[in-house]
Amino acid sequence: MRINQFGYVPTTHEQVVKELKAIRFLTADNIKITDPLTLFRDFLLKYFSQHSSTSTRLEKLSNLMATTTVDANQYTQNTGPVTRVAFYNIGLQLLGFLNDLDFSLSDPLKSIAELGLPQPMIHQTFNCGQIIDAWYRLLNTRNKYGQLLIDYIAGKGYYHHLLGGSSVSKPLFFNGKAQAVFKTDALIREVVYVESSLDTDHDGQRDLLKTNIIRPAETNDGYRAPVIFTADPYAQGMNEKWSAQYSHDNVRPLKRKQPNDLAYQDVEAKLPNDTPPSPRKIKGQTTKTGETFTKFWSYSLNDYFLARGFAVVYSSGIGTKDSDGFRTTGTQDETLSATAIIEWLNGNRVAFSNRTDQVAIKASWSDGNVGMTGRSYLGTLSTAAAFTGVAGLKTCIVEAGLSDYYPYYRENGLVVAPDGDDADVLAEWTFSRQQNAGDYSRIKKPWLSHLQQMKHDQEHDTGNFNQFWDARNVTKYNRTNADMLLVHGLNDWNVKTGQVWSSRNKLKARNITQKLILHQGQHEYLNNFRSFDYTDLVNLWLSNKLFGVNNNVDKVLPNVIVQDNAHSETWNSYDNWGGTESLTHTDSLLDWKNHDGNSSFSDRLPKATFDHYTNHLTNWSHDLYSRNGSPMDYHCIRLLSDPLKDDLVIDGQPTISLHVKTCADVGMISVALVDYGKAHRLTEVPQTIVSQKILQGYHWRKDDLKEFLPQAVQTDFKRVTEAHINMQNRDNSYKVNDLLPNKYYTLSFQFQPTFWHFLEGNQIGLIIYSSDMIYTVHGNQDITYTVALNHSKITLPILK
Amino acid sequence: MRINQFGYVPTTHEQVVKELKAIRFLTADNIKITDPLTLFRDFLLKYFSQHSSTSTRLEKLSNLMATTTVDANQYTQNTGPVTRVAFYNIGLQLLGFLNDLDFSLSDPLKSIAELGLPQPMIHQTFNCGQIIDAWYRLLNTRNKYGQLLIDYIAGKGYYHHLLGGSSVSKPLFFNGKAQAVFKTDALIREVVYVESSLDTDHDGQRDLLKTNIIRPAETNDGYRAPVIFTADPYAQGMNEKWSAQYSHDNVRPLKRKQPNDLAYQDVEAKLPNDTPPSPRKIKGQTTKTGETFTKFWSYSLNDYFLARGFAVVYSSGIGTKDSDGFRTTGTQDETLSATAIIEWLNGNRVAFSNRTDQVAIKASWSDGNVGMTGRSYLGTLSTAAAFTGVAGLKTCIVEAGLSDYYPYYRENGLVVAPDGDDADVLAEWTFSRQQNAGDYSRIKKPWLSHLQQMKHDQEHDTGNFNQFWDARNVTKYNRTNADMLLVHGLNDWNVKTGQVWSSRNKLKARNITQKLILHQGQHEYLNNFRSFDYTDLVNLWLSNKLFGVNNNVDKVLPNVIVQDNAHSETWNSYDNWGGTESLTHTDSLLDWKNHDGNSSFSDRLPKATFDHYTNHLTNWSHDLYSRNGSPMDYHCIRLLSDPLKDDLVIDGQPTISLHVKTCADVGMISVALVDYGKAHRLTEVPQTIVSQKILQGYHWRKDDLKEFLPQAVQTDFKRVTEAHINMQNRDNSYKVNDLLPNKYYTLSFQFQPTFWHFLEGNQIGLIIYSSDMIYTVHGNQDITYTVALNHSKITLPILK
Repeated sequence: MRINQFGYVPTTHEQVVKELKAIRFLTADNIKITDPLTLFRDFLLKYFSQHSSTSTRLEKLSNLMATTTVDANQYTQNTGPVTRVAFYNIGLQLLGFLNDLDFSLSDPLKSIAELGLPQPMIHQTFNCGQIIDAWYRLLNTRNKYGQLLIDYIAGKGYYHHLLGGSSVSKPLFFNGKAQAVFKTDALIREVVYVESSLDTDHDGQRDLLKTNIIRPAETNDGYRAPVIFTADPYAQGMNEKWSAQYSHDNVRPLKRKQPNDLAYQDVEAKLPNDTPPSPRKIKGQTTKTGETFTKFWSYSLNDYFLARGFAVVYSSGIGTKDSDGFRTTGTQDETLSATAIIEWLNGNRVAFSNRTDQVAIKASWSDGNVGMTGRSYLGTLSTAAAFTGVAGLKTCIVEAGLSDYYPYYRENGLVVAPDGDDADVLAEWTFSRQQNAGDYSRIKKPWLSHLQQMKHDQEHDTGNFNQFWDARNVTKYNRTNADMLLVHGLNDWNVKTGQVWSSRNKLKARNITQKLILHQGQHEYLNNFRSFDYTDLVNLWLSNKLFGVNNNVDKVLPNVIVQDNAHSETWNSYDNWGGTESLTHTDSLLDWKNHDGNSSFSDRLPKATFDHYTNHLTNWSHDLYSRNGSPMDYHCIRLLSDPLKDDLVIDGQPTISLHVKTCADVGMISVALVDYGKAHRLTEVPQTIVSQKILQGYHWRKDDLKEFLPQAVQTDFKRVTEAHINMQNRDNSYKVNDLLPNKYYTLSFQFQPTFWHFLEGNQIGLIIYSSDMIYTVHGNQDITYTVALNHSKITLPILK
Repeated sequence: MRINQFGYVPTTHEQVVKELKAIRFLTADNIKITDPLTLFRDFLLKYFSQHSSTSTRLEKLSNLMATTTVDANQYTQNTGPVTRVAFYNIGLQLLGFLNDLDFSLSDPLKSIAELGLPQPMIHQTFNCGQIIDAWYRLLNTRNKYGQLLIDYIAGKGYYHHLLGGSSVSKPLFFNGKAQAVFKTDALIREVVYVESSLDTDHDGQRDLLKTNIIRPAETNDGYRAPVIFTADPYAQGMNEKWSAQYSHDNVRPLKRKQPNDLAYQDVEAKLPNDTPPSPRKIKGQTTKTGETFTKFWSYSLNDYFLARGFAVVYSSGIGTKDSDGFRTTGTQDETLSATAIIEWLNGNRVAFSNRTDQVAIKASWSDGNVGMTGRSYLGTLSTAAAFTGVAGLKTCIVEAGLSDYYPYYRENGLVVAPDGDDADVLAEWTFSRQQNAGDYSRIKKPWLSHLQQMKHDQEHDTGNFNQFWDARNVTKYNRTNADMLLVHGLNDWNVKTGQVWSSRNKLKARNITQKLILHQGQHEYLNNFRSFDYTDLVNLWLSNKLFGVNNNVDKVLPNVIVQDNAHSETWNSYDNWGGTESLTHTDSLLDWKNHDGNSSFSDRLPKATFDHYTNHLTNWSHDLYSRNGSPMDYHCIRLLSDPLKDDLVIDGQPTISLHVKTCADVGMISVALVDYGKAHRLTEVPQTIVSQKILQGYHWRKDDLKEFLPQAVQTDFKRVTEAHINMQNRDNSYKVNDLLPNKYYTLSFQFQPTFWHFLEGNQIGLIIYSSDMIYTVHGNQDITYTVALNHSKITLPILK
């Protein structure tokens, strides 16, 4: 077990005293105490103040050991100094650590270091001032169950008890973070319909966008809340089965494409120039809506902030249930259906209290400051909204968001979408208007023709870039004013790392603060891990960006935090990713050991093998990378570096240049970098280590605690990064080159960027193959590829 | 998708009117309506009454289609009769079913039948009375997301809205079931300490038992609540790592036992005859405790009832954190630490408001009627409490509970505990007092010596029955007065089916009502399945047993409900299990096809194979049952029946008689019955089909929807039942017989009871083997067993 804490703000003693007063640990009474043990006892009794009975609180103290022989109740009945050992023994127990398991009462400091907890105070005994500082730091330390101690006792009722007696201010901040002092049992849930400037379903009326609001009851008494907005196209329902009818079959041969001579201007998308219909006439004003809603699944990070004075707003956008319009998969219209909500929250757009009466309603409860959250499509919409520069949007926390749809569904002239997905499939998947039979009956025809048009325009057959895709580059125009916190999984092969790489590099052109967190997951949330204080640092971030709390977050947070792949529960900070902190190193492929001794391979597998792999994709990828003999031997080229003499970190975007020929007039090449060496690698998906133990607030949302733990079994390899290219797209993704059989061509292309820690003794592997049964079309074509290894090379960015 | 509904109470029109008035669908106003369409429209508008705006409600109506062309808003603006098709089209949409996916607007009745929904009304058009009846039935129909429609709209705020306006009574019952009308945002959580008559830690003081209470706020205003009590030894924490130190190694040879001549009186346990210490002096009385608590994990069925006027009480019993005493794994002391709580709830025992002050507190909020719930150990404690006949305990819902600890940890003179478990390990696992370092420091020594005594007394080495185990037969004395609802998984190999079989048969001696539900899971909860209305029927049951509602549940519920193993989402009702509805059928084992042609086998495997199986237990069991060649060939005897000419159901407890010899002076025999035949069998564990879609109350607990679905791949076999015996325990589990090498003995013993549907064409398999690598000790001994098949036979109870 190891805890990494990035979200702590170093605080002066003067400020510590001020903040402990604000949260009522220090009072007019106990500030006068001069005996350290007496003050410590008072803190401990206040710690258990959810129990009104003093006898009960003392029973809790008796359950804690101060030394190996004396309990905390006995220990604090004396007067005098508090020993460091006793303070941290009790502190560790309050944090949930168990004697004789997580630590030993005879040497708490040893475990504090091993667990990665904050540096203990250096004094052997503590006076009152030191008790105050140490107590403050303890309340701001993560416990065994993934929460700051102050958040844990807030969940147990600490503030609730205070609010029953003397009150605390709302909002309340402690160590720069908003505290759980708001009444979650009285949250207001209401629905409004924002009028966009779009008419994407062409019915002659501006698209109304259903917007679900959850806001603190305190906003009815004059409190103005900052807003967390999640644009979630999935939230109103998903058409799993209906969209399956649009799914594409990737078990098919790669087709030869007619060469062309296209330049970018030939495929550039023009911005739509439609004049929207006139706005609806406003027939009245109201402050109350007559519609409420029930949230089923919700993002627990958003729920956490509801207890802390933020409002949370969800809107699903055009084409979703109860809204107007059509889904378009990533066009500017979808972006504008997200920014429309922000404009309303910021006072710059009209919303109605229902779809019928044209009675306007203002977001009078909003303070106008908006931050966006969400993962995947939701994160993409955050990025897209940020790049518009819409007023009121102060920050986005983008988890696994896209920068551009072409490299999501395509790569260098190839379709790279698993499971038959494509833009049309996703449009139908999210077109939840279809679930309202009444609404759907009125727009079925134009919707089906819109979908047919998408199916045609996306050019699934060629994989080429064109206007359709250029219109879906959501970061093409960069007017970003929001500070950006980007979060991505280094093993995310749904939204690949190139997406965050690209967003991040574009954002460097803007005068904003951006931070990056790279984790070892695939397509995951991070807000309930034990080893990493993600929730706390997001709180620090949003308290600054939305509440304007001067907590120095831009300096406190490292620019880049990376979870280590080689050691569990280890998160390191860096100044940059793929920048000048790395040196590029180029090797000829002849310099690497050729594992199978071939430089030529056939893409065709025996039919039974091919059929088996088609139904067992993980077997295929295992056999592809395996160096212990498999049916994939001689259907690829496997090259290995020498065993590494030292640890080595690839930091950024590897590139490859291959001199290669195909025996046919079509061809595609895939390459993978692999980390070889026996190790207990981290689990691919987070494991639940304790259920329902995280308390997001008092009698409020609970969450499971998770972690990527080392696997029980050792594995010999793990894929690090990969890339794919159509040999007819050697120049770029829209110009189609000619391709002659048996003629060598040079293909230069880029892997997905990575940050990978290779341990000493491990080997870097390079696999060169053709069809990727998971990502590309695969028709088991009888094509032989030959690579001139002596004219081929790989370039790796190596961390200095 | 198929829905099975058992918890509906047939209701007269008169009663329907009365109940619809009580829940305010019928009012003084709309009861006068004579036009069916107008009444239907009024019902629909009331259905959406969580939205205060009529415009919003009409928008919701417009989203529903009444016919293939007309929406519900248009349709109900006319006057006249309501067609059956329109009513059920709208009804299906309210239930969450989608047009063109789950049903078709052109023929709703077809889907109603296919989905297993209640029989539609027969009339082609409905008058007002028929609308009322059909609407009542619709509200009492399960929706697509595993809830009754009335529960779903309650979760959406239906009652909450009413309570804001005109009030409904509390408690409120609809179709015999308690309704979610209580305020879950104001629940009272408090702790008391019940004083037991035990002193299991021998400290000279009666053991205090921490009791966590969650009760409706309405109990502070005079409402008296019935109580759901869950005795949960796990709830205060588990010592996973500490108990691992006590784990037993089952990779060891079976040892020869010294023959003996013991009779039952030699191993019979005497009831303890200790005089408990005097009760604590009561120094005062209070109505308020000064301690509260936070529930982390909780059983969602209990939470469901909190919204419906029940109080829920948790107590973990002796030896758990914040209580006194020691864990004993199933003795009468543990039972009495559960019944003590019931005695307090029923006014017959003292509890204190904290551990220190000796101030007594009464359960004045309780109406004295208690029902117990819980699974596994929790269910065992329910059964044990019921068998004491304690006053106030009206019913238990026992999910996967034990009847007796010997057949849990032992079988016919063998240890059959997976993972090195045993009574001592479980005692340490649940001894959560150890997690309070202060408390533990004061009782560590006597606890360790108690644990050593258990380790000795349980005779892990011999596997024999003795006084230790006789004292852990929790159903030995049968004074049961509570009605019992027993629930068990037919694939539960943790708490095996013999446990529920035994409880059930003993309960037949008592003048109580008992019901049984057998499902296709292992060790699972049933309260969130789509295909089965478990939660509803438990509500019906508890409303009757605890609230005394006259809902006829004893007749409405079938005696036995069994989930079919051969068809998904199919639950059938029966009058009995393993009774006279079955005929026994005996076959000589010579009559079955000998798959490998051997009647003799060695228990010894090649070392590499043995080691592999030790670490891959599912591979071992797969290879044991496989008829496609495996390393287990010739290490067992595999017999197969002829392919079945018709479907066949084994209903009850198969028995076997084997004439067998061992080449050594020790020996054990295992047998398994297997269902052979390619099929998409049900998943072993429930699959989540929709997340967080079940609403247990208004802004209250949400739950995932689950189901055992057919597996994507076909399998050739599934183990049905099994049994194990030590050849030295031919007579019973305490008398040790002599055993000579190479001498034939007859072993007659019983399989775990089952209810198994073999499909026509499938074959019944019998596997005879020795060491069971999952359940028994296994030392890879070089022992050869020979079965005289001509003198061996199997007897199966076959459903007529």
